[in-house]
Amino acid sequence: MSLADDLLARNRAYAEQSFGGPRPLRPGRALAVVACMDSRMDMFELLGLENGDAHVLRNAGGVVTDDVIRSLTISQRLLGTTGIVLVHHTDCGMQKLRDDEFGDELESATGARPEFAIESFADPFDDVRRSIARLHASPFLAAKDEIVGFVYDVDTGLLHLVEPA
Amino acid sequence: MSLADDLLARNRAYAEQSFGGPRPLRPGRALAVVACMDSRMDMFELLGLENGDAHVLRNAGGVVTDDVIRSLTISQRLLGTTGIVLVHHTDCGMQKLRDDEFGDELESATGARPEFAIESFADPFDDVRRSIARLHASPFLAAKDEIVGFVYDVDTGLLHLVEPA
Repeated sequence: MSLADDLLARNRAYAEQSFGGPRPLRPGRALAVVACMDSRMDMFELLGLENGDAHVLRNAGGVVTDDVIRSLTISQRLLGTTGIVLVHHTDCGMQKLRDDEFGDELESATGARPEFAIESFADPFDDVRRSIARLHASPFLAAKDEIVGFVYDVDTGLLHLVEPA
Repeated sequence: MSLADDLLARNRAYAEQSFGGPRPLRPGRALAVVACMDSRMDMFELLGLENGDAHVLRNAGGVVTDDVIRSLTISQRLLGTTGIVLVHHTDCGMQKLRDDEFGDELESATGARPEFAIESFADPFDDVRRSIARLHASPFLAAKDEIVGFVYDVDTGLLHLVEPA
């Protein structure tokens, strides 16, 4: 079976058995979650949120990039969210990279070097703090009073609060 | 209760009752999903995937931006994914915006105008096709043979396959 047919069949089962009916466009808890793309994090489940509660933004690392600022600006100014929840995690792929080395690898594999930063980091707690600083530095966000950051432990399923430096 | 304490309490319940134990860093199905941040889409559930199966990348619209290319490059070259699944949806906030008007609103509210594109669109099917074209145009992705695009209907829970234009 093709990937498309497989996913369509799985989705039909979801629509018939689990879909809870339409929900409003605006997130019920007025939250936006910014998390790493890691496959081991089911964001609604591990935060104890319901479908419809929060926008979910995810990228490699859960880093606050321009695309995250773009998305949060729309989330806040168009769709009324006010709280921001950052989630990095232990055993992250971004800890296994270095920006310069990965740039070299890409250049030798493809002949091109990306203009974007790779955004690797050594410590997820430090990188949550860096991401929080980037949120505060953006002129575009409308609400910055409720920002919390966590590191998720992939071995225990537990979140750890990131305290300010 | 503060937002942090509320989420920590919900997460402790998850870790005690639902966490299924450690899983490998590499996604089990070698997939990366790129989807809109919309609060009504629980990606693993609506695609019938298990926790651990796929990287999940999300932003406003599910649009392929530089940050998505960055994340997919790492997903493929560091963590071995090969398939890419794009998911836009009906009733998207991005259909309610226009780049130029929203830029004007931001400038008058903040005094600054973003350097990034807002990435609004009128039709989610067309924008999935535009995003697929951006994947094919990137020099950095290692695997482009298995790319599928869907539009999720938020009223029925059903995915619709996006056929090439």
